[in-house]
Amino acid sequence: MEERVKCKSLHSKITSAKEAAGMIKSGMTLGTSGFTPTGYPKAVPEALVKMVEKEEDFKINLYTGASVGQSLDGIFAEAGIISKRMPYQTNNSMRKALNSCDVHYADIHLSHFSQQIRYGFYGKIDVALVEAAQITEEGYIVPTTSIGASPVFCSEAEHIIVEINTKKPLELCGIHDIYQPEDPPNRQPIPLVNPVDRIGKPYIEVDPSKIKAIVITDLEDDPIGFAPVDENSRQIAKNLIGFFEKEVEVGRLPEKLLPLQSGVGSVANAVLKGISDSRFKDLIFYSEVIQDNVLDLLDEGTFKFASGTSLTLSPEGFQRFYQNFDEYRSKVLLRPMEISNNPEVIRRIGSIAMNTAIEADIFGNVNSTHIMGSKMMNGIGGSGDFTRASYLSIFTTPSIAKNGDISSIVPMVSHVDHTEHDVNIIVTEQGLADLRGLSPVQRAEAIIENCAHPDYQKPLEEYLNKAKEGSCHTPHTLGDSLSWHEKFVQTKKMR
Amino acid sequence: MEERVKCKSLHSKITSAKEAAGMIKSGMTLGTSGFTPTGYPKAVPEALVKMVEKEEDFKINLYTGASVGQSLDGIFAEAGIISKRMPYQTNNSMRKALNSCDVHYADIHLSHFSQQIRYGFYGKIDVALVEAAQITEEGYIVPTTSIGASPVFCSEAEHIIVEINTKKPLELCGIHDIYQPEDPPNRQPIPLVNPVDRIGKPYIEVDPSKIKAIVITDLEDDPIGFAPVDENSRQIAKNLIGFFEKEVEVGRLPEKLLPLQSGVGSVANAVLKGISDSRFKDLIFYSEVIQDNVLDLLDEGTFKFASGTSLTLSPEGFQRFYQNFDEYRSKVLLRPMEISNNPEVIRRIGSIAMNTAIEADIFGNVNSTHIMGSKMMNGIGGSGDFTRASYLSIFTTPSIAKNGDISSIVPMVSHVDHTEHDVNIIVTEQGLADLRGLSPVQRAEAIIENCAHPDYQKPLEEYLNKAKEGSCHTPHTLGDSLSWHEKFVQTKKMR
Repeated sequence: MEERVKCKSLHSKITSAKEAAGMIKSGMTLGTSGFTPTGYPKAVPEALVKMVEKEEDFKINLYTGASVGQSLDGIFAEAGIISKRMPYQTNNSMRKALNSCDVHYADIHLSHFSQQIRYGFYGKIDVALVEAAQITEEGYIVPTTSIGASPVFCSEAEHIIVEINTKKPLELCGIHDIYQPEDPPNRQPIPLVNPVDRIGKPYIEVDPSKIKAIVITDLEDDPIGFAPVDENSRQIAKNLIGFFEKEVEVGRLPEKLLPLQSGVGSVANAVLKGISDSRFKDLIFYSEVIQDNVLDLLDEGTFKFASGTSLTLSPEGFQRFYQNFDEYRSKVLLRPMEISNNPEVIRRIGSIAMNTAIEADIFGNVNSTHIMGSKMMNGIGGSGDFTRASYLSIFTTPSIAKNGDISSIVPMVSHVDHTEHDVNIIVTEQGLADLRGLSPVQRAEAIIENCAHPDYQKPLEEYLNKAKEGSCHTPHTLGDSLSWHEKFVQTKKMR
Repeated sequence: MEERVKCKSLHSKITSAKEAAGMIKSGMTLGTSGFTPTGYPKAVPEALVKMVEKEEDFKINLYTGASVGQSLDGIFAEAGIISKRMPYQTNNSMRKALNSCDVHYADIHLSHFSQQIRYGFYGKIDVALVEAAQITEEGYIVPTTSIGASPVFCSEAEHIIVEINTKKPLELCGIHDIYQPEDPPNRQPIPLVNPVDRIGKPYIEVDPSKIKAIVITDLEDDPIGFAPVDENSRQIAKNLIGFFEKEVEVGRLPEKLLPLQSGVGSVANAVLKGISDSRFKDLIFYSEVIQDNVLDLLDEGTFKFASGTSLTLSPEGFQRFYQNFDEYRSKVLLRPMEISNNPEVIRRIGSIAMNTAIEADIFGNVNSTHIMGSKMMNGIGGSGDFTRASYLSIFTTPSIAKNGDISSIVPMVSHVDHTEHDVNIIVTEQGLADLRGLSPVQRAEAIIENCAHPDYQKPLEEYLNKAKEGSCHTPHTLGDSLSWHEKFVQTKKMR
């Protein structure tokens, strides 16, 4: 215990999860640690749900870094105790709750969220609830496997509850680099120039008197799945790597590329595998989420450094990480999401942003969030931060979904998260469309020819040709533009 | 002449517009000065159009800072000599040409354009053609009344043609602050911390040997109109100023606000007039375009400093500016658009971004560019740069257009330039909707109640209520979502 809570004056705050949960009252806003289902609090949420089981009308707002696990988002949503949820989620029960409008969900660019909490846009944070590996002698908090928005929750909250998780080894101390910018008009340049730079402290500096409860727990994060790589994903990766090679050849990318950002999922995993198999070496990974495959690329020398805001490893991945910590210590860094996703930094270092689209339209607009225009899938997460500020913005998607009943390339996307102004490259297993400097009609021709599935090429061409009769910059026949989605809603088939 | 072309070795380059125009060959890409119709070249374009009158298939690409005047965009479009046009325009003839797809127009975030030229995304710049007040002893170029993208054109172009415009007084020397960032992976923080900071040089540093022709001219810029303020605009301004006062009261904005960015046009002018009439003093204007009304606000002390990339004054405004230059010299600064619009700087200083929407939908998405989803009006310009990176993003629009035949608040915008993730505040003459932290349905309720015209409130409510039966995060009935626009295209009335 002395090792985990080094600040002696805080020993008196060690208490039960139930006691700590009692500090969270209906109407409060709770800001928790967690980014992807790792590093989020579990003991106090479980106790809170038990405590308010029979309490009607108990409602709180839940703000997190990004997605958190079933044992936080899931049980809160199932208990019906959430009023407002921000800024991102991926949980089945939470998704159901927000799509039935039982939960008010605001889907926010992750880089905006922390500063807008400080600006007071989202009200007061009553309680910060953060998982920690350690509390230092000074009473400062060392996070565990993710940082997310914990620094801002701790600085802005009235009270702090800490869950010390003894399953998270003390080796994690030192892997974090915590920096919080000042707010305008006093903000200074963020001094991160090279992705490997350390610019902050290895802990979250807090006023220790705000720490009202410390709960000791050994609850595990929900196990993290790793999306398998299928043949389509492999082909998407191949198309993309071929493009990188060509860009290097013509001098638009350096031989060591530029810092890579990658989403998660099957295609993202395939792309990293493709890079691993390519001639590229000594690359930098500057992204949000560090998964098992990033360790592979670090081990083999494809990557020389990885910066993120969460370590989202499988149990085997964590074992490997902790066993070889001496080696990884100098190659892996976790930052607050306000820094990992900061457009100032991303634009400066010149990220190559690689994110997945739910669908893209022939003019290059991308939908990352909504199924058939209405149903929220997860949220925009960091894809907008990276896409807009990147050196090169890339979206990947298989050309079809649901065995071909859905075309991922459509006349008009049913929801826009990334506009035609922001999307440089679209890649499917069919090929790659380079949209840079093209007019809308030229983009449409490139996307239909290179990205659309053969079964949908002709219908897309017909749509474009009919719309072109109107003689406009972005040809659309408004009555037909969303008809594919409409047909799918009615018949479960776009064709 | 010695005063205007101080570099003696360049005197031999002084030549006629016709001679200079002869250096521009079909297939070339021309990068010119100009941002809003001011500070763009006029003599060489006129000579070029004359020269190629009878030449069939003469086509060039025209890249500029932003919009330029009739005597460049207009005559080139009318002569049919443009193949590709980037990144922004406002000219009638050019608009017609790009909407008939005779010109390939790529509508680009202005802050992206300069760096993407350097990255090589848009091909080689063959000739930079820039209007200058002076060439220094070293052979460096002092721009005139706008900077735009001239620095990057000069650094990247193979050849440079300079139009020395003797109608632009030498007093302009010193008003420019030219800084060009390095490209990744070598980029450093942009050292602009306070909007008044000077971080560069008062001229564009060029390799003088690239200057192949110098043309002396006294052609005037096209006269600049100043949009009159109508009653609706005044009411929009009133709603917005009331909001600022409330934000100051609750502590979310400082008493001197934060640096203001403002688009141009009737509503923008009304807002500046409203600020002038308010209690706010000593404000900073950090924007793109400095118009006559900015001088008013500087004179009276409402503004203490104005930074932009163009001086877009009326003839009387220029007279006043030059006559009182000693006073304005310390209060007005022009920067390259890569800096005036730089998200790094905008986010750091915490801009209040105020831009006009063509239409907004009930969920907070904004269309800034396309009439009825297809016809390009002008382009996104800098609105995306400021909106995304701002402290607070605001869109203004009258609630109706065409005497009420068009509602500016619609179920779904027909084109998205600013997504629901990016829009904080929408203001019409009816009222103001504060969308911060709201879910889509809450946003819809706020926008319909506060911003929609009474004649359209009920139809919007009906749309929302019907769509809500589908029980989804962002309720839409896809078959109806664009039906208002469709009806307008067919009947010239949305109702």
